[in-house]
Amino acid sequence: MTFVLDPRLAADSDLLATWDLCQVRLQDDARYPWLVLVPQREGLREVHDLMHADRHRLAEEIARATAAVAALGVHKVNVGALGNIVEQLHVHVVGRMPGDPAWPGPVWGQGSPVRRAPAARAALEQQLAHLLEL
Amino acid sequence: MTFVLDPRLAADSDLLATWDLCQVRLQDDARYPWLVLVPQREGLREVHDLMHADRHRLAEEIARATAAVAALGVHKVNVGALGNIVEQLHVHVVGRMPGDPAWPGPVWGQGSPVRRAPAARAALEQQLAHLLEL
Repeated sequence: MTFVLDPRLAADSDLLATWDLCQVRLQDDARYPWLVLVPQREGLREVHDLMHADRHRLAEEIARATAAVAALGVHKVNVGALGNIVEQLHVHVVGRMPGDPAWPGPVWGQGSPVRRAPAARAALEQQLAHLLEL
Repeated sequence: MTFVLDPRLAADSDLLATWDLCQVRLQDDARYPWLVLVPQREGLREVHDLMHADRHRLAEEIARATAAVAALGVHKVNVGALGNIVEQLHVHVVGRMPGDPAWPGPVWGQGSPVRRAPAARAALEQQLAHLLEL
């Protein structure tokens, strides 16, 4: 089984951590604290394509990710696996605040990404690296 | 522990099945085949609020729901737990087709629901009741 990350996911996000099942990536969009979890298995498209044990791993890893994003002080965490454009199974975990650019709607397809300044990205990556270990 | 369904979820959807963890509900919107899973636990808001065993139950029940919706012949299944408006933890499982009213964007917050005619709703509910048992 060879896992290959879709090049569009690779282009839009940076690797933060490699967990038992998923790559944990930081979406390069300063509008939201936004993680993307990508199960490192070949040929996954839908949740039910995951083997039984991997479904449980994914649930645990999503919970670790939502807890980390919540600990940044956001109001609500949004979780979504859409795949209408990039079909490789991936799960968005997005911190939301009232008044953010898409509030209270979903973030996907709304406006254009705002790239993070390198210092801001480094600071957020360091903070998340700590929270993702908890 | 007393589970009380948020009245907004109750108003927008009909109960199809009661599983180990979740109520499985059919969103009353003819634009999409759209299930809503609501864990029957008190006070849940985020995925990490679920106890360990319930996270696994939720993953299994989401996979059953995505498989049922996929079996209707859709192109892609979208899964989302947002909660920006209704904070009680609930998971949308939505069948998508190229050219549907929101394609390729997310369905949430796009346009207005189209109510199903009673006969169409009864037919879909019967079809889903069968698929959800598989």
